[in-house]
Amino acid sequence: MTDISPLLLAMDLTGVFIFGLTGGTVAVRRQLDIFGVIVLSIVTALAGGLLRDLMIGAVPPASLRDDRYLIAALLSGLVAFFFHPQINRLVKPVMVLDAAGLGLFAVAGCGKALTYGLTPVPAVLLGVLTACGGGVVRDVLVAEVPRVLREEIYAMAALLAAVIVIAGAELGLPRTPVAIAAALAGFLLRVVSVWRGWSAPRAPGS
Amino acid sequence: MTDISPLLLAMDLTGVFIFGLTGGTVAVRRQLDIFGVIVLSIVTALAGGLLRDLMIGAVPPASLRDDRYLIAALLSGLVAFFFHPQINRLVKPVMVLDAAGLGLFAVAGCGKALTYGLTPVPAVLLGVLTACGGGVVRDVLVAEVPRVLREEIYAMAALLAAVIVIAGAELGLPRTPVAIAAALAGFLLRVVSVWRGWSAPRAPGS
Amino acid sequence: MTDISPLLLAMDLTGVFIFGLTGGTVAVRRQLDIFGVIVLSIVTALAGGLLRDLMIGAVPPASLRDDRYLIAALLSGLVAFFFHPQINRLVKPVMVLDAAGLGLFAVAGCGKALTYGLTPVPAVLLGVLTACGGGVVRDVLVAEVPRVLREEIYAMAALLAAVIVIAGAELGLPRTPVAIAAALAGFLLRVVSVWRGWSAPRAPGS
Repeated sequence: MTDISPLLLAMDLTGVFIFGLTGGTVAVRRQLDIFGVIVLSIVTALAGGLLRDLMIGAVPPASLRDDRYLIAALLSGLVAFFFHPQINRLVKPVMVLDAAGLGLFAVAGCGKALTYGLTPVPAVLLGVLTACGGGVVRDVLVAEVPRVLREEIYAMAALLAAVIVIAGAELGLPRTPVAIAAALAGFLLRVVSVWRGWSAPRAPGS
Repeated sequence: MTDISPLLLAMDLTGVFIFGLTGGTVAVRRQLDIFGVIVLSIVTALAGGLLRDLMIGAVPPASLRDDRYLIAALLSGLVAFFFHPQINRLVKPVMVLDAAGLGLFAVAGCGKALTYGLTPVPAVLLGVLTACGGGVVRDVLVAEVPRVLREEIYAMAALLAAVIVIAGAELGLPRTPVAIAAALAGFLLRVVSVWRGWSAPRAPGS
Repeated sequence: MTDISPLLLAMDLTGVFIFGLTGGTVAVRRQLDIFGVIVLSIVTALAGGLLRDLMIGAVPPASLRDDRYLIAALLSGLVAFFFHPQINRLVKPVMVLDAAGLGLFAVAGCGKALTYGLTPVPAVLLGVLTACGGGVVRDVLVAEVPRVLREEIYAMAALLAAVIVIAGAELGLPRTPVAIAAALAGFLLRVVSVWRGWSAPRAPGS
């Protein structure tokens, strides 16, 4: 068992809470009852990290070894259930939070993959998977095409954050400032792309 | 490799057959052909246990190491295919069977997680996952929002069964009667909740 | 770590490219942007093999240990994006390619499961999973009922290829010609079944 650093843990737990909140909010909008809300919160919060841990062989996954993950996910579901009207009035803040979760998870996922000895390209892929996996499972469970496939700059923002982590590791830069810069870069790319309405090209004649 | 007890194995295999039946029945209703019915039976029957085994590091999963799992799942698909009209006239018995599978899988899943050294909270989660995972995959494959998110007391019944397993283990009670009591409790909560039309609260103003 | 043979690797990589192409083509038809196309290509190309590797305990999965998998998947996404009109005029060739991928993946998946010490029945199941898994994830992500459940002879063709691999291994025949014959048989069954419009029976009174 390889332990991750306190910084990665803090990023992971913050991301868990934020993603759980987005899952719970979607569940409330779909008029699920309190159990459905909590289930969707937990799944959205933990699926990305679970998939990553399964793939790097970190079994049982961190979220099953450390109760704080599950508690953070559960809390996010309860917050989404009880403060749903307030959250919904806050469309922009929720988008901003989601972007923060995206950056944090991409960095934590990529960093953990490196810690487990993966090479750069797969580590980047796992960063993106960690960041986008929970949202994909959330959208699939409510029978929607996942946001990561529809929204312009989403996987791209996670990709940017993961690539910065790799670049920093290759250059031998100190890990903490690189992690913070990477999460910030992913976060900013996502927020600015929504704010400016950036869109990526579609296939010619599609 | 840690072997599970004969009791857990019997519970697992019974649950496999029952869940395979529910998967096959859904497939017949969707007018899938015989291969589609068998595929959906197998997936519904085995997905919950597969996910559990992947997460506790029991690899290859039990259902790939012991042919009886696959045979039970296959049989359930054939039964669903050929006896579909009879099964469909039996809406209540199918619900009751499904509730039985729910209780059995929750107990088997939670018990196996404990056997593999997981702590109580994650073991409960894995019990719920084992019980609900197959049905989730089944519903996702036919493009429906999973029952576990829509139905009032479903994950809740699995949760109850798993919590009783944990409580019994913490109190040092003998495992077999605790397992039977836990499966029964989950089963009864599910059946009674359907029978009495119990519903869980929805979010205020959702 | 057990290495697979060069033949299995070549089959795997060819299958990856072909399945990535089918994923990318579906994505273009759904008017996803270039990132969505690439994500769906990668997922379709790699999901089957990833699931197989997770289940046999080959962790990290081959596609995360060997950059060529990811590169092949990425390339297929770009080809689908830029040559989509040409590909779409070629409905039949795409079906034929997909059938080829089906046969190749079934053989590679079943062979790798044997290499990792699984017994015949689970090895066959993993061959089918490897062949059909990517397409299932692709269809689920665009909110469609997976082709493997709807199309007559699809899982069946993968099953045939995997069974031939097993039969060859049991009879002690040389692996390379058996692998080629098995992939061909799966491919031909699929192509002929589409060409002749073969259909499998539906449940009586469904």
